[in-house]
Amino acid sequence: FALLLSFNVQAMHPNLVITQTDVIAMRNAVTEPGSFTTAYYALKARVDQQMPFPVIVPVPKDGGGGYTHERHKKNYQLMYNAGIVYQLSQDKAYAHYVRDMLLAYAKLYPTLDLHPARKVRSQNPGKLFWQSLNEAVWLVHTIQAYDLVYDALSGQDIEKIESELLRPVALFLSEGQPSTFNKVHNHGTWATAGVGMAGYVMDEPEWVEKALYDLDKSGNGGFLRQLDELFSPQGYYNEGPYYQRYALMPFVTFARAIDNNEPQRKIFQHRNGVLLKAIDTTIQLSYGGLFFPINDAIKSKGIDTIELVHGVALAYSLTEDPGYLDIAERQGQIILSGEGLKVAKALDKGLAEPYQFNSLAFGDGSDGKQGALVVMRSELGGHQALLFKPAAQGLGHGHFDKLTWQYYDQGNEIVSDYGAARFLNVEAKYGGRYLPENESYAKQTVAHNTLVVDETSHFDGDVEVGNQNAPTLNYFETNQFGAVASGEIHTAYPGVKLERTLALINLVELEKTIVLDVFDVGASGAHQLDLPLHYLGQLIDTNFELSVNTKQLSVLGSENGYQHLWLKGCGQPEPGLAKVSWLNDNGRFYTLTSLVKGDEEYLFTQIGANDPNFNLRNEQAFIRRVKNKKQHQFVSILEPHGEYNPRKEYTLDAQSKLTELAYTGQDDLALVKISIAGMHYLVAVN
Amino acid sequence: FALLLSFNVQAMHPNLVITQTDVIAMRNAVTEPGSFTTAYYALKARVDQQMPFPVIVPVPKDGGGGYTHERHKKNYQLMYNAGIVYQLSQDKAYAHYVRDMLLAYAKLYPTLDLHPARKVRSQNPGKLFWQSLNEAVWLVHTIQAYDLVYDALSGQDIEKIESELLRPVALFLSEGQPSTFNKVHNHGTWATAGVGMAGYVMDEPEWVEKALYDLDKSGNGGFLRQLDELFSPQGYYNEGPYYQRYALMPFVTFARAIDNNEPQRKIFQHRNGVLLKAIDTTIQLSYGGLFFPINDAIKSKGIDTIELVHGVALAYSLTEDPGYLDIAERQGQIILSGEGLKVAKALDKGLAEPYQFNSLAFGDGSDGKQGALVVMRSELGGHQALLFKPAAQGLGHGHFDKLTWQYYDQGNEIVSDYGAARFLNVEAKYGGRYLPENESYAKQTVAHNTLVVDETSHFDGDVEVGNQNAPTLNYFETNQFGAVASGEIHTAYPGVKLERTLALINLVELEKTIVLDVFDVGASGAHQLDLPLHYLGQLIDTNFELSVNTKQLSVLGSENGYQHLWLKGCGQPEPGLAKVSWLNDNGRFYTLTSLVKGDEEYLFTQIGANDPNFNLRNEQAFIRRVKNKKQHQFVSILEPHGEYNPRKEYTLDAQSKLTELAYTGQDDLALVKISIAGMHYLVAVN
Ligand SMILES: [Ca+2]
Ligand SMILES: [Ca+2]
Ligand SMILES: [Ca+2]
Ligand SMILES: [Mg+2]
Ligand SMILES: [Mg+2]
Ligand SMILES: [Mg+2]
Ligand SMILES: [Mg+2]
Repeated sequence: FALLLSFNVQAMHPNLVITQTDVIAMRNAVTEPGSFTTAYYALKARVDQQMPFPVIVPVPKDGGGGYTHERHKKNYQLMYNAGIVYQLSQDKAYAHYVRDMLLAYAKLYPTLDLHPARKVRSQNPGKLFWQSLNEAVWLVHTIQAYDLVYDALSGQDIEKIESELLRPVALFLSEGQPSTFNKVHNHGTWATAGVGMAGYVMDEPEWVEKALYDLDKSGNGGFLRQLDELFSPQGYYNEGPYYQRYALMPFVTFARAIDNNEPQRKIFQHRNGVLLKAIDTTIQLSYGGLFFPINDAIKSKGIDTIELVHGVALAYSLTEDPGYLDIAERQGQIILSGEGLKVAKALDKGLAEPYQFNSLAFGDGSDGKQGALVVMRSELGGHQALLFKPAAQGLGHGHFDKLTWQYYDQGNEIVSDYGAARFLNVEAKYGGRYLPENESYAKQTVAHNTLVVDETSHFDGDVEVGNQNAPTLNYFETNQFGAVASGEIHTAYPGVKLERTLALINLVELEKTIVLDVFDVGASGAHQLDLPLHYLGQLIDTNFELSVNTKQLSVLGSENGYQHLWLKGCGQPEPGLAKVSWLNDNGRFYTLTSLVKGDEEYLFTQIGANDPNFNLRNEQAFIRRVKNKKQHQFVSILEPHGEYNPRKEYTLDAQSKLTELAYTGQDDLALVKISIAGMHYLVAVN
Repeated sequence: FALLLSFNVQAMHPNLVITQTDVIAMRNAVTEPGSFTTAYYALKARVDQQMPFPVIVPVPKDGGGGYTHERHKKNYQLMYNAGIVYQLSQDKAYAHYVRDMLLAYAKLYPTLDLHPARKVRSQNPGKLFWQSLNEAVWLVHTIQAYDLVYDALSGQDIEKIESELLRPVALFLSEGQPSTFNKVHNHGTWATAGVGMAGYVMDEPEWVEKALYDLDKSGNGGFLRQLDELFSPQGYYNEGPYYQRYALMPFVTFARAIDNNEPQRKIFQHRNGVLLKAIDTTIQLSYGGLFFPINDAIKSKGIDTIELVHGVALAYSLTEDPGYLDIAERQGQIILSGEGLKVAKALDKGLAEPYQFNSLAFGDGSDGKQGALVVMRSELGGHQALLFKPAAQGLGHGHFDKLTWQYYDQGNEIVSDYGAARFLNVEAKYGGRYLPENESYAKQTVAHNTLVVDETSHFDGDVEVGNQNAPTLNYFETNQFGAVASGEIHTAYPGVKLERTLALINLVELEKTIVLDVFDVGASGAHQLDLPLHYLGQLIDTNFELSVNTKQLSVLGSENGYQHLWLKGCGQPEPGLAKVSWLNDNGRFYTLTSLVKGDEEYLFTQIGANDPNFNLRNEQAFIRRVKNKKQHQFVSILEPHGEYNPRKEYTLDAQSKLTELAYTGQDDLALVKISIAGMHYLVAVN
């Protein structure tokens, strides 16, 4: 009878991401060696290190990065971890540690007004944190910790914790902030996840309904609407992979809790399994383990972020696709959950198979028709990836970079995107927030590898206009010859049409690929047209004269990012093939050969002007410029070649082997004749 | 009888680096799997790939890097490799391949005059190559290849190859170029090695005597004199580790051949085993597998260079010290020789033990008294190394960098040396030779982390003067508190004494180290004193106001390297502690805190001015400058701190924790008070 009662109680808790069934399997697993057990003891050791210290729940004071902010973040993580260790060890000391912290919060919370460091007139202040986003993240963790230790709490503690802490927080984040809670935005997802999970734990089905369907249950907001709107049908998140992996976390967490509590909602099948697609897309949008740094991305983020560790565990548990085990292996981290256990067991059995990275076009926007983000890949002569971005603006973190591209080869970035200008959490660097140079440089069009008209950014730098005007993906195709895509946009500049075709072409005979880039500009009036190429590496050679500013450097322009560029030198190649070669750190040479008519000026630049706080990286670019033009076509080939190996003291093919490049365009057919290393190719694109 | 005859013949050949005894062991080894066998089959596959192609021995035409130059280099390597495969496979096809190539050379060589691409009025032109250095290297390889295939050659072939090729080459490189052959210089070592080995193979003991003791057998030149002069008693080679590993090769090769042929010469015991010390020193002069880039060093060179693979195989075979196996493992390459076999067997048995990198002072100059190169290491809080250079000039490849330092931490260069300005073998970059900027920037004092008086380089940039005036190492000590060294020089500038003390100090309580730097300058007249610090990373913060040139950059100076520096900004800290912090790619912060009296100006610079061909890397420095001073003391602490981890979204201790720094110097006692992270330390140096 006692056993039955105990079972009964335990069947109720935990039951969010981790269920009672999971717990039984996990307890069983840690009796034997294996990667799950290793991960468990590592976590336990970390928790054990903290346990002797008194619980610290400070009165909220500091904004992001400050002491009280970081302490409250640490606390929810600690409670969550101690809750896991309690369930696996069944040692009540861990549950009591969580209990004591929850009670300390229950004592503090009712005394709190809005956070003193909140933004003035903010729509979403928190109480424990300066913004309610952090408070929602706190709830998502804390409600799980509470669920994990529930069966070790007295009725009195439960009453106190729920009435003084968890209910007030859940109500504050829902009824208390309708505009955030109902918002179809990542901040809304954290709020609905926290409140919905609280509903499951504290038996408030109405909270779950509101979390899923908006406070008024209309379906205009809420978690399901977020799933419908925030991802494209292909699972692409409008703000790009850096934010996608972050956005994934509450989706993955809450969806698992929904499925555990109400499998009849078939949440994982929702919208043709869009959540699984979203996880998979995040992986596809990486190279060498790092996310493509479009929009406000910090470049060191990659597939081993904790959010994607959770995502991959879910993806594997839903599909048992052994490719996800490959990613899990690269992540090198085991989640202590039922799904984490499945992954750990499969890895221990050696079931991993190589994850397939593919050439793909990810439709953008909730209907998948707001342009697309295109990835082309080839394995010919090393891992290569080309990212082409005829994609939508991507909200406030989006960059004005319509039709830009990036190129990766042999492990490195070759044609680069600056990413975000930010030193995350470094107080001396603008408090660790996005730097002013993120707006003034990193977001601007000239910071990208795409066309700038009259030294102004796309949409004149207006996010609202950008959000309303997406490019069109005209076509995308892959076959044995490679991959090709074409996109266009008419709205980036009034009266100007931008159209670009990019192809990653396999030259099987030469065991390498080349990139073909054809950028057509047509305007009703005459303009200055700039096409920058940001390259990583050391300039090796140009086949035309350069006039270099050796004694003094001046700023290239006055605004829209140009004010951050030093003009190092310039040259105007004669009609024919203009070549610029550089050497990347990966030891390979790259040459951009362009077909020029003598009207293109090449400006060589370095980032760093108007940078009084040394906030920018001093990277290089060259900008191809024509003036006073209604029409122009930029035609180029990017060619990787040779090897610089000073270690073994040899250098191979430091010179481009491309000797001929001819382009003919008629209606929808483009013919490109290329002679390279004595081979002749005809590329037809239509 | 036939067997005996065969034995007799085989006992004669091979007998240079590889002996008949070695061959028997090697043949035996390749019958079983193992790393030696793997290496053998890999080499055999490479040779097999070349064998079907006709032998190509072109008429010499091109200089370094050109076609005929590279072809002749490839040929000697091919002959050597085919010779090895012949001995191990006993398949005569390989011997015949070598024979055919030797005969082709024997046909060509007598027709040759001096090389058409030789330098005008050169003392050392070659015939096959533009300089005789390459010709000597050719002989060192070719004589071994000949020795390896000797027993497969007919008497007629032997006669032709020796009389038309090998004897003429040996005579050309000895009697034909006495000044090179007798020179106590690395070029001389290759010549004596080639000629001496030819003497053993072709039974010309006189050639061996001349190779060992000078053409006139006086001992004024020759291989033994080279061993006596080119290394210090501690085994340090005057030009630095980059050239040391290169210089090692002919020493290692010829010494092994001498010992195999005339063990009674006890060549490995010569000068207290200086050759073994030289090999070991080369390893010690590395960090993270790469050589400390002092002097004209290309920075990617490290312990896995082929010369040191040979060196380590010799060192292990002489000592059986398992630390060398650790290095061999990191080199990842097995030499196909008797010594290589010993290494391979020991590695296969798992006998490797960690090689011990130590804090050491390597006396410079043949007497070890021309200053010293000092390495300090600590493992407290990560691998750290500090290189301090109160060393001699190091001949033509030396830099004007007396008392400079470099600092390494957690795998990366933090306080850096530019190394050489060169893109090895990249034709577009000044033919792949040392760039003009090597002279105009990389060698100059301002390119280093040491003191510049009146914007001129040490010894006014005169190598001859530099070679005649070395600094003094005043002391070097290590104990449980760390390592400290002090050096001085009075001759770098007339009437100016430079004295520097550097210490790498273990702060056990804080689990990290700091660097103490005290630089005393005393002069008879007033001067401008500049102390640059070249840092790798992004500037994070200064605790004093900077005036930054945001609109225009100008050149800092007009000559001696200053013409290559852009002045980005400057500031003049108030009396007290002046701090400059940067973030290295290794994710750690570094702060240089200096004790200033208000008279030091800080100039922030970037390399890249007067660089019309984009030859220089655009790295950062700050220069501490005082004007019109007879005396000055620069006192600073370099403090590693914190961690920037955007991947895991945390940043720790981005700010320096050093709060107090006080210095008192009296006679030979220096007292430094340091408060850091709430701990108080008193450092006494005497
Ligand atoms: Ca504007
Ligand atoms: Ca050129
Ligand atoms: Ca500051
Ligand atoms: Mg961008
Ligand atoms: Mg945000
Ligand atoms: Mg140097
Ligand atoms: Mg040389």
